[in-house]
Amino acid sequence: MPTASGHTTAILASKVRGTPVYNTNGDKIGAVEDIVLDKLSNNIMFAVLGSGGLMGMGEKFRPSPWSVLDYEPEKGGYVVAVSKDVLENAPAYRMEDLTSDDGEQAVRAEAFSYYKVERYW
Amino acid sequence: MPTASGHTTAILASKVRGTPVYNTNGDKIGAVEDIVLDKLSNNIMFAVLGSGGLMGMGEKFRPSPWSVLDYEPEKGGYVVAVSKDVLENAPAYRMEDLTSDDGEQAVRAEAFSYYKVERYW
Repeated sequence: MPTASGHTTAILASKVRGTPVYNTNGDKIGAVEDIVLDKLSNNIMFAVLGSGGLMGMGEKFRPSPWSVLDYEPEKGGYVVAVSKDVLENAPAYRMEDLTSDDGEQAVRAEAFSYYKVERYW
Repeated sequence: MPTASGHTTAILASKVRGTPVYNTNGDKIGAVEDIVLDKLSNNIMFAVLGSGGLMGMGEKFRPSPWSVLDYEPEKGGYVVAVSKDVLENAPAYRMEDLTSDDGEQAVRAEAFSYYKVERYW
């Protein structure tokens, strides 16, 4: 789990994975499933929020700009500053579509538009 | 393992971890142990190359700018385009120092200088 210690601006990708994610209502809406990196730049392409699902069946994966994840130490997880409805209606994909040929660029564009985050590319 | 399929520019952080790393002599010098992300920007802070070590004892971790890792499909791993000596003499740290308060900024600066990679910050 990420810690609240001090002024570090660094976090291991392996520690981000599995960290719970909450909406602004305080409901747990899932966890960070993985991070997608851009091979051709120094950028984090997006984070992948997993919605839970049952035994891995029907699980949806929501791409989310890295900057929308705010870590709140007292919650021990990330809060995404959008309402429950907005988060539940966010674009969702199968995991394999998130890194598929060319598809990942459309996925990224849609996620940044949906969360109204300025594009880095 | 990362695949060579098509034109995707995306890679899951979980797939990068454990991928072997070679120097330009073709020697395996370790594997990508983890990726350090910058909480305060959209950037990959650096990759962490593990040198092996025995049963985790004496293992050294070398921070490396993301851009120096070139994936070579036929090798099934990354090649860092520096000689064996340069890679072996690269700055190395204990894992906990790589994300310690403020320390990670010095680590990052040293790594980018050592590999002569332009800073993103």
